[in-house]
Amino acid sequence: MEAKIVPSDIEISQASPLQPIADIAEAAGILKEEMIPYGENKLKVKDVRERLQDQKDGNYVVVTAINPTPLGEGKSTTLVGLSQALGAHLDKKVFTCMRQPSQGPTFGIKGGAAGGGYSQVIPMEEFNLHLTGDIHAITAANNLCAAAIDARMFHESTQKDSPLFNRLCPKGKDGKRSFVPVMLKRLKKLGIDKEDPDELTDEEKKRFARLDIDPDTITWQRVLDTNDRMLRKITVGQGVAEKGRTRETGFDITVASEIMAVLALTTSLQDMRERLGNMVVAHSKAGDPITTDDLGLGGALTVLMKDAIWPTLMQTIEKTPVFVHAGPFANIAHGNSSVICDQMALKLVGEDGYVVTEAGFGSDIGFEKFCNIKCKYSGLKPNCAVLVVTIRALKSHGGASKVTPGKSIPKEYSEENLDFVREGAKIMQKHIENVGKFGIPCVVCLNKFTSDFDSEIELVLQIAKESGAFDAQLSNHWADGGAGAVDLANSVISACESTKEENKFNFLYKSDASIVEKMETIAREIYGADGIEIEEEAKKQIEVYTKNGWDSLPICMAKTHLSLTSDPSKKGVQSGFKIPIKSIRASVGAGFLYPLCGDIMTIPGLPTRPGFYDVDIDIDTGKIQGLF
Amino acid sequence: MEAKIVPSDIEISQASPLQPIADIAEAAGILKEEMIPYGENKLKVKDVRERLQDQKDGNYVVVTAINPTPLGEGKSTTLVGLSQALGAHLDKKVFTCMRQPSQGPTFGIKGGAAGGGYSQVIPMEEFNLHLTGDIHAITAANNLCAAAIDARMFHESTQKDSPLFNRLCPKGKDGKRSFVPVMLKRLKKLGIDKEDPDELTDEEKKRFARLDIDPDTITWQRVLDTNDRMLRKITVGQGVAEKGRTRETGFDITVASEIMAVLALTTSLQDMRERLGNMVVAHSKAGDPITTDDLGLGGALTVLMKDAIWPTLMQTIEKTPVFVHAGPFANIAHGNSSVICDQMALKLVGEDGYVVTEAGFGSDIGFEKFCNIKCKYSGLKPNCAVLVVTIRALKSHGGASKVTPGKSIPKEYSEENLDFVREGAKIMQKHIENVGKFGIPCVVCLNKFTSDFDSEIELVLQIAKESGAFDAQLSNHWADGGAGAVDLANSVISACESTKEENKFNFLYKSDASIVEKMETIAREIYGADGIEIEEEAKKQIEVYTKNGWDSLPICMAKTHLSLTSDPSKKGVQSGFKIPIKSIRASVGAGFLYPLCGDIMTIPGLPTRPGFYDVDIDIDTGKIQGLF
Repeated sequence: MEAKIVPSDIEISQASPLQPIADIAEAAGILKEEMIPYGENKLKVKDVRERLQDQKDGNYVVVTAINPTPLGEGKSTTLVGLSQALGAHLDKKVFTCMRQPSQGPTFGIKGGAAGGGYSQVIPMEEFNLHLTGDIHAITAANNLCAAAIDARMFHESTQKDSPLFNRLCPKGKDGKRSFVPVMLKRLKKLGIDKEDPDELTDEEKKRFARLDIDPDTITWQRVLDTNDRMLRKITVGQGVAEKGRTRETGFDITVASEIMAVLALTTSLQDMRERLGNMVVAHSKAGDPITTDDLGLGGALTVLMKDAIWPTLMQTIEKTPVFVHAGPFANIAHGNSSVICDQMALKLVGEDGYVVTEAGFGSDIGFEKFCNIKCKYSGLKPNCAVLVVTIRALKSHGGASKVTPGKSIPKEYSEENLDFVREGAKIMQKHIENVGKFGIPCVVCLNKFTSDFDSEIELVLQIAKESGAFDAQLSNHWADGGAGAVDLANSVISACESTKEENKFNFLYKSDASIVEKMETIAREIYGADGIEIEEEAKKQIEVYTKNGWDSLPICMAKTHLSLTSDPSKKGVQSGFKIPIKSIRASVGAGFLYPLCGDIMTIPGLPTRPGFYDVDIDIDTGKIQGLF
Repeated sequence: MEAKIVPSDIEISQASPLQPIADIAEAAGILKEEMIPYGENKLKVKDVRERLQDQKDGNYVVVTAINPTPLGEGKSTTLVGLSQALGAHLDKKVFTCMRQPSQGPTFGIKGGAAGGGYSQVIPMEEFNLHLTGDIHAITAANNLCAAAIDARMFHESTQKDSPLFNRLCPKGKDGKRSFVPVMLKRLKKLGIDKEDPDELTDEEKKRFARLDIDPDTITWQRVLDTNDRMLRKITVGQGVAEKGRTRETGFDITVASEIMAVLALTTSLQDMRERLGNMVVAHSKAGDPITTDDLGLGGALTVLMKDAIWPTLMQTIEKTPVFVHAGPFANIAHGNSSVICDQMALKLVGEDGYVVTEAGFGSDIGFEKFCNIKCKYSGLKPNCAVLVVTIRALKSHGGASKVTPGKSIPKEYSEENLDFVREGAKIMQKHIENVGKFGIPCVVCLNKFTSDFDSEIELVLQIAKESGAFDAQLSNHWADGGAGAVDLANSVISACESTKEENKFNFLYKSDASIVEKMETIAREIYGADGIEIEEEAKKQIEVYTKNGWDSLPICMAKTHLSLTSDPSKKGVQSGFKIPIKSIRASVGAGFLYPLCGDIMTIPGLPTRPGFYDVDIDIDTGKIQGLF
């Protein structure tokens, strides 16, 4: 048992000396003219990929985990600790790529997302709050889109064809009507090969002007970066001026917006413009998909997102560089930081360097999507995966009582119990197997907790090594920073070297497999299920989506992260189960379909005593108090 | 008639060479360590007031206008043009203080808010979009408060007294319960002089834990910086997990949030912490006001707003410095930029310098509130007011047809018509009189339009000078930049000099006048009304607010800006009318009461063809296209 006393995350963060962020950037090979400063401790970095196009990519390491307890198992902490070990102790060029956390839960019950203990991104307050405004930009863009959908339906319902068309294409100062570029895109989609509004027939004018959205098909929700449970389901349009045009809809938390997924998967400004114009928000009454560019929105959304496209640079406690960029949900989206930050970081570290990135939740969710979605769009191949396990999570899968956030942890977790650990280790074996299915080496990191027993640690490491892991290491970076993760880092270096001659990374399924085949493959291979059960609604959607040509998109399963099955209460490795596919939604702009395998909560609530009670500011120093 | 061709605002802005913003700051006397950079063209400036406390304040000039047409009469353009004349042509130290515009209307039908033509703040795209995130911070803070209100009501409704209290004050690691500081404030308010939770009686625990909010009294709305008309009135809480706890409420646009008014009126971090904790969001069923600190929120709101408290520095086309800071609504709030930016600017320019600030809408609204609300809290005295008039607005008050946004301007406005102008000039006379009531000189600025006739111009200037204006000047800063406003600037300098020996600035009413007396005074003196008509709801509120001790607060009339009366269609100077007081709301944190004198729209909508159709990005250069 560990005796060292580790202060709170915010105390450690505020006590850690900060290097001027421009120095961190310069040391990382970023040029002055590529830096966009945001205060003293953060800067955005403009594109470096063209300048460094002849540079070979560095080693690409992805950090994943077994199915965690609801408290989390220190994946971000491991990510940072490993980076600190590589950069500050083993003298490697290194970049950490992290997701930007949602601000809403900061005031609820969640802990911070900047890592923890002596493995943190600092200042953690700035990491957790506002950052450089990317999530705020997504809120603005997402909600402009929502307002545009409802406003368009309203105006179409109150206007006849001719005035509607004339208002959309008003006369200019020269007395002539004209189409703006985004309108030409819609005309092309409708098969109308004309560029002069006056040449359209009345029928063509009507087809152009009337999106004729079927309200029941609208999939676009409004968003806020706030834990506001009352907005889960609402009725809008009850004002007098809206003349009874009410509609049932809801809010998601901002990071669940498709625009966040677009930001995370886009590769360039041009690519982002296309994706933001191709998002499908509804279908017309005739069954045609309605896109953001049909609404005339793609350009404006891109303008709102133009600064968000570049990653934010911060630093770890041990002064290694960190890119913070994008943070999509890991269930209804793919749960990984941005393609752009990984690509930029791989060029910046160069051939002998290391980029350590993180995939949300366990290997069944974020890592599978990292491989099949993120790497598909980035064209990158990881060299190694780090699988984070904790004795706590293994015990929870091995028969110990349930762990509940906000309640004290049951006694079994602080008592030696090799039976729980041995039984729970089966799920680790399954996750090692999952990594292997993608053709890359798996290094197991046992993230040390003060409640662990030596006998338990020994058992886990032994089982991991016997189960196909490339290596397995105990790591104590939470208490000791990078120094605590040097063994882990050396194993990661060896694992990466083993792929240098030939990187056998592979996708799990082919793009041209059917939607059903892809879902089946993930369920059987990754979750260990007997297959899937497709409900009626989903069947109809598969038909429509296949007709629309969306069957070539990868699949983003929206499943609980707390179990390999779709039932969060089912711990350990299960067999004889199927994965229900209740319905399937399409993020066409981001570029994936997401089947719903259960109820997914897309906006959290506040508990009776929210975290904000503890948060205040020191009036004299301006320092934030009580944030984690 | 003018022949010069002036390009679009965005073309002028993008063609104007930018000085590095740090150079602008340095020239303005700001130290390196006071600058917080945000990209290359913006920076935030930390407090300079303590460092410059021995410096005398500069001249303080406020720009107001007559009641405008719905198209606006170029008040911001005049503000910038006058500043450019003072700084770049007359070699005075100058600072322009502007409101941050709401981003939502940028994509609707409104023009930009950065000025126009050759009198602009640049880059206007950055001015109009995101800026340095202050409005986004307000959205986050406002909605955390909204979520907290509903979540608290939900949890109170599902829990008995004892578990509710115990959850609010959970046992720490030492097994003991404790109060956090914000809870002690509530205890004090309740008259419970105890610091140990275990010492409270059951009755005291209940009083502490149950806010017992009466849902019908909730005045706190959610906000978004989006033109979303469907959110004006909504029903929330329709999700299954919310168990039927639905409630009718609505969204305002973010700049209508009380937190925006707090930002604009606060004088320091400590003062902001107090105001953000004192905001009254509802009343209990027993009739007691419920504050944000009763909800435990004041600290968290301050933390969310801690960067927003410092103004953003930008530059005009002629490289004079501009503070952009806060932009409260001018009807349900006071419509002026921040106290802090004016105070900082007055110190930075020093005794011989000029700070030019702008008050929203006409002298009946923004200017009256500038004097009676903003100057009350800042302790500052203006030296001179500039009253912006246009021939267009005078004609609209003098009998010409109605001007409607989005439609072409009626022919009468481009034809010489001295009768319309002479009749319309009566409203100018009333506004000159209004300025005089506050004891400061009024300089009339006739903002030149290309459609003006020399005879019309001459008439207006003559009437202005005969009606008590200190001076009246034609100004052509839109087409000619600062050079076009040199005469105006010289008149402003003379006017300020005239107040140097004795500044006779005075408030219109005393703090200890009753709520009714204050409203009466404003209606009679400023609007020229015969008095006010108080409706039943307002009468009850006056009683409650007076009982709460809020009658000492200044009054912020929520009246249309398009008329001196409460009816926007009534042009010119009217007589024999009364101002209806339908109801009165209280912004206790910001520090004013706002009587509603008509229907005030607090979130705009999108037209059939929103401005976003024109907005796109040049993929190669990254430049924004089509924004105004």
